[in-house]
Amino acid sequence: MLNDKFYMDLAVQNAQAMKGQTDPNPLVGAIIVNDNRIVGIGAHMKAGEAHAEIHALQMAGAKAKGGTIYVTLEPCSHHGKTGPCAEAIVEAGIKRVVIGTLDPNPIVSGNGVKILENAGITVVSGVESEKAWQLNEVFNKFITHKKPFVTLKSGITLDGKIATHSYDSKWITSEESRLDAHQLRNENMAILVGVNTVIHDNPELTTRIQNGRNPIRIIIDSSLKIPEDAKVLNDKKADTWIFTSQYPDAAKEKKLLSGGIKVVRTSSLKNVDLSEMLNVLEESQISSLLIEGGGTINASFLESHLIDKVILYIAPKLIGGKEAPSFLEGKGFNKMSEAIELADMEITKIGNNFKMVGYPIYEA
Amino acid sequence: MLNDKFYMDLAVQNAQAMKGQTDPNPLVGAIIVNDNRIVGIGAHMKAGEAHAEIHALQMAGAKAKGGTIYVTLEPCSHHGKTGPCAEAIVEAGIKRVVIGTLDPNPIVSGNGVKILENAGITVVSGVESEKAWQLNEVFNKFITHKKPFVTLKSGITLDGKIATHSYDSKWITSEESRLDAHQLRNENMAILVGVNTVIHDNPELTTRIQNGRNPIRIIIDSSLKIPEDAKVLNDKKADTWIFTSQYPDAAKEKKLLSGGIKVVRTSSLKNVDLSEMLNVLEESQISSLLIEGGGTINASFLESHLIDKVILYIAPKLIGGKEAPSFLEGKGFNKMSEAIELADMEITKIGNNFKMVGYPIYEA
Repeated sequence: MLNDKFYMDLAVQNAQAMKGQTDPNPLVGAIIVNDNRIVGIGAHMKAGEAHAEIHALQMAGAKAKGGTIYVTLEPCSHHGKTGPCAEAIVEAGIKRVVIGTLDPNPIVSGNGVKILENAGITVVSGVESEKAWQLNEVFNKFITHKKPFVTLKSGITLDGKIATHSYDSKWITSEESRLDAHQLRNENMAILVGVNTVIHDNPELTTRIQNGRNPIRIIIDSSLKIPEDAKVLNDKKADTWIFTSQYPDAAKEKKLLSGGIKVVRTSSLKNVDLSEMLNVLEESQISSLLIEGGGTINASFLESHLIDKVILYIAPKLIGGKEAPSFLEGKGFNKMSEAIELADMEITKIGNNFKMVGYPIYEA
Repeated sequence: MLNDKFYMDLAVQNAQAMKGQTDPNPLVGAIIVNDNRIVGIGAHMKAGEAHAEIHALQMAGAKAKGGTIYVTLEPCSHHGKTGPCAEAIVEAGIKRVVIGTLDPNPIVSGNGVKILENAGITVVSGVESEKAWQLNEVFNKFITHKKPFVTLKSGITLDGKIATHSYDSKWITSEESRLDAHQLRNENMAILVGVNTVIHDNPELTTRIQNGRNPIRIIIDSSLKIPEDAKVLNDKKADTWIFTSQYPDAAKEKKLLSGGIKVVRTSSLKNVDLSEMLNVLEESQISSLLIEGGGTINASFLESHLIDKVILYIAPKLIGGKEAPSFLEGKGFNKMSEAIELADMEITKIGNNFKMVGYPIYEA
């Protein structure tokens, strides 16, 4: 007999397949099983249209009665555009509901389960909960923590370098990896680098794929030393926001402001307060941030426990050099036992490069 | 219809399965196919016993006639313990011979092919030649280049570090990875570190698995600054050889020699001439060397194009630190285009670690 994990995985896969077409709604998948046979498959496909459970119930018809429904997200309890799914499940005569994750919104979380349990239905929650949560990781983080979901992306050599000792970095990764990385820019609402990356590489930080959406460009620059001819200040391809310290060079600040650049002072005297920066993004409804910084910026975020996800494109190359910049520098941790572990590491091959994805685990 | 690659892969797999039981003979596998059916399987299993081709021909019997034999290594042409395989193939009526690699020994290479071709048999060579070559990579390198086969092994964090900035390194990788790494020590005839690793970690450099064979311990120490209480100098668990520069501290050298340590001066004034060191190993019939150095030693070998194979155990951890030692330091290359690429990269999961294996490609 196939088990709960199997069916939930299938529901996750169906939900995942709708990526990019459900905004601003979350990705949700559902599977109905009766007498060890799948009798209904559903996924939420478009905002304003039916929820995943409704599609699956309609497909199952009378065969839903007495069955089990697997749904990646707790069935809704509210009368919205498509009515409460929890009630539809009760009416269809489902006997058992298996849930991936509860609703992340604390105001309604658990309400769907209550309706189901009050109707005498067995509810099991937390099956494949990590996968189910990751389906909507950006949305979930934003709802539960009121902070953007922060992804650290870096293209590195096998020895962890992002450039040679002479700062040559063209190219480390393959064309396929770089294309994949541009997809990340397309998916994130903002992109962040430190001013040193602007000085060394003068990047555009735009999304170079067809119909790509350019993220807002965030530059961390405590003393406003950004070169006035930097592309991000002049090309008008996307908005550029500079976060600086409490008392930056006021003349430079004025000049930047007059050029249409947003400059935000944070309360820190010498550096930029990164947590404050994230709050500013949240207030502007920016739910996702991609960090493509150098080793110092990356380490600042990691040491502040502000990174939710790490994506590394690893080229099968060795460059060496004690002075060659690596993707994670800063001070670093003192003891190996303090190292930040990544959970759910997955590795895939992209051409002759490797893509590694993982989620930092921060001790409470 | 299955193709040449498929059958050669099967021959490689059968050869590989005999790892450790054919010494000092190479690993060889053979498959006989007739009328699209496999009719014989063979591998060399023990020195003094039948070669792979003979086992496969015996299994095939009369069904070998008119068939194709796939053999990972060129059939032998000499009358040794088991007679020339090339002649046995001719006698069995085989019509086509597919070879992985020619014999690496330049004195006999091609002779087997000649016997076959003179008998009117079609010979195809170079099918899955890299896999076939890698079966006996140590032996092949030793025969063709008269140098030990050099493997660089390192256990690193995702950011390429081998310790924290305070030199804490216990433990980076998982127990499973460390066990796998001890298998490498068992397979290599010698193991090498720099004197700084001895100073920082005071390692034993022994093989800690059941019935493990300890490699000869090679220390690179240009000025003989090795601490006199180092384990490798006192524990008598394996021989220790120290390679030094032309004029080291003579008193220290004398002391070491009197303690049963071999000290070899190389012709370099300040450093240790690594190429000369490898020649000394070769003269002592040491065909394989495992490097477990720090970033400086590793970079010296890589920059001198002396590394044949790289094995990295990667833990899903981030440690950070501009001053934390990474597994590859030295000066490094100046341009990204000079980076040394690794061919045939393979990645496998070991517990929650990743093992990456690749072969550096050096431009001629």
